[in-house]
Amino acid sequence: MAVSANDPTGEYIQMDEMDWVPFPEALCSGPIRWKLLRVSPEMGSWTAIYDCPAGSSFAKHIHMGPGEYFLTRGKMHVRGGSDEGGSTAIAPCYGYEGCNAQHDHTEFSEDSEFYMTFLGPLNFIDDDGNTIALVGCEQVLDAWKAATS
Amino acid sequence: MAVSANDPTGEYIQMDEMDWVPFPEALCSGPIRWKLLRVSPEMGSWTAIYDCPAGSSFAKHIHMGPGEYFLTRGKMHVRGGSDEGGSTAIAPCYGYEGCNAQHDHTEFSEDSEFYMTFLGPLNFIDDDGNTIALVGCEQVLDAWKAATS
Amino acid sequence: MAVSANDPTGEYIQMDEMDWVPFPEALCSGPIRWKLLRVSPEMGSWTAIYDCPAGSSFAKHIHMGPGEYFLTRGKMHVRGGSDEGGSTAIAPCYGYEGCNAQHDHTEFSEDSEFYMTFLGPLNFIDDDGNTIALVGCEQVLDAWKAATS
Amino acid sequence: MAVSANDPTGEYIQMDEMDWVPFPEALCSGPIRWKLLRVSPEMGSWTAIYDCPAGSSFAKHIHMGPGEYFLTRGKMHVRGGSDEGGSTAIAPCYGYEGCNAQHDHTEFSEDSEFYMTFLGPLNFIDDDGNTIALVGCEQVLDAWKAATS
Repeated sequence: MAVSANDPTGEYIQMDEMDWVPFPEALCSGPIRWKLLRVSPEMGSWTAIYDCPAGSSFAKHIHMGPGEYFLTRGKMHVRGGSDEGGSTAIAPCYGYEGCNAQHDHTEFSEDSEFYMTFLGPLNFIDDDGNTIALVGCEQVLDAWKAATS
Repeated sequence: MAVSANDPTGEYIQMDEMDWVPFPEALCSGPIRWKLLRVSPEMGSWTAIYDCPAGSSFAKHIHMGPGEYFLTRGKMHVRGGSDEGGSTAIAPCYGYEGCNAQHDHTEFSEDSEFYMTFLGPLNFIDDDGNTIALVGCEQVLDAWKAATS
Repeated sequence: MAVSANDPTGEYIQMDEMDWVPFPEALCSGPIRWKLLRVSPEMGSWTAIYDCPAGSSFAKHIHMGPGEYFLTRGKMHVRGGSDEGGSTAIAPCYGYEGCNAQHDHTEFSEDSEFYMTFLGPLNFIDDDGNTIALVGCEQVLDAWKAATS
Repeated sequence: MAVSANDPTGEYIQMDEMDWVPFPEALCSGPIRWKLLRVSPEMGSWTAIYDCPAGSSFAKHIHMGPGEYFLTRGKMHVRGGSDEGGSTAIAPCYGYEGCNAQHDHTEFSEDSEFYMTFLGPLNFIDDDGNTIALVGCEQVLDAWKAATS
């Protein structure tokens, strides 16, 4: 994984040679796996790809900065999905989550995969809005190290 | 105050014609006042100027993204100040606080003023590291509106 | 296409329902096509996906800010490729191009596709280093509008 | 001067102990001086303070990304000043220059000083809009090194 650095010759990751690792259980339901592709501590940004089997979901969170995703495979229901007033993303699709976007439910009804760039932390919260885990680039890197070491 | 917008003719604030307002009591000790100069929700960034009388201090917090300050007047003790292993900023000075910089104590021993740009939220925490207030650009704007309306 | 806005309910693009349009001829060789997915003028960032047939290439350019790509299909030779001291990206792969990365040759030896996020402009240059086209988020949006209107 | 780094203990510059150096002649008229306070190559951003004597001016340029300034002293006329349809900034004031803001004339009618943060390069242009100098964080750092070594 590439951590920071500003090498003008570029940095490169062969994604299929990198192993998937379990995403922290406390932050999701079901066996979501991920690969951390980059952490840029100077900006507070990071990039990752997620493998989300049918039936899995992410815990309630707020994007404290903008994020952009590219759903390459599957179906993702945001805020209950289009049946419940939210939206349903069907691959291939692009989505932008603005600063302060709150995602109470992010569920996958099919095996799905998405690539995402984040600027600023994710605030995982309980039903009363209290912070359970504040996940910024340092925490992301720690979680990755813990899962791969 | 200028909120977002990408006006190519620029945006301008006559700072001495804008009133100081009290900074939220829960986040500081002593009568700190501030002026919010800009909120850029698309980036999750904001800019403000702070008036900190001798003896005032900010509550314990972590910078979840980078911040840069210009101390125009006074003296600011960060992490206990240089007497206790931290640093003491003496105006005129510039400081950079990287992503994840933790400020347990930020105290002003003289009447001080600083201008600061923030990218990403501040995580105000208690002594156990639990989040008391997560202050991003939305919360900053809400606090400003509450104080000025 | 989603232009700016900080809608907390998110923004969404069904990518396969959006038409590919020709990428500006002056900036590439061969029939490269693209889809502009987002422009964030407040940050000076944008996101797009590119379809690059075998034999196509991008003209010489410098990244004036960081960029990240996800090559989903094909093979991309950067700076002459690994045979000539550069690197060759083989899908699926992730790459980071730092601020000031110069790409004299970006060639595709197979039909390829990549998704890329950009912060800051691309400086397309001639062999003497003179700017031919400086392509930031405004120019990107203008090019897109010209191609789709 | 602080170059990059993500030191969580922060970085600090005693501004009055740093010497002013001449700003590149090709980019201004009159003896403008500056101090480069930080370059963050990972973001493509930088921060500086400028000393602009009465009668000096900056050459024509376009902000290719957002910039924010704090005019601490003096008077700055942007785009001809308020007498000619532009604006006149009078210290103490704050200004935001959005992505693509073009400044044909930036003149100082009094001895002035301003602090500014930049994200993305400045495109200095001639009267036909051709790029004379594209000044991003690398060029800024090179100019600073050339002036101080």
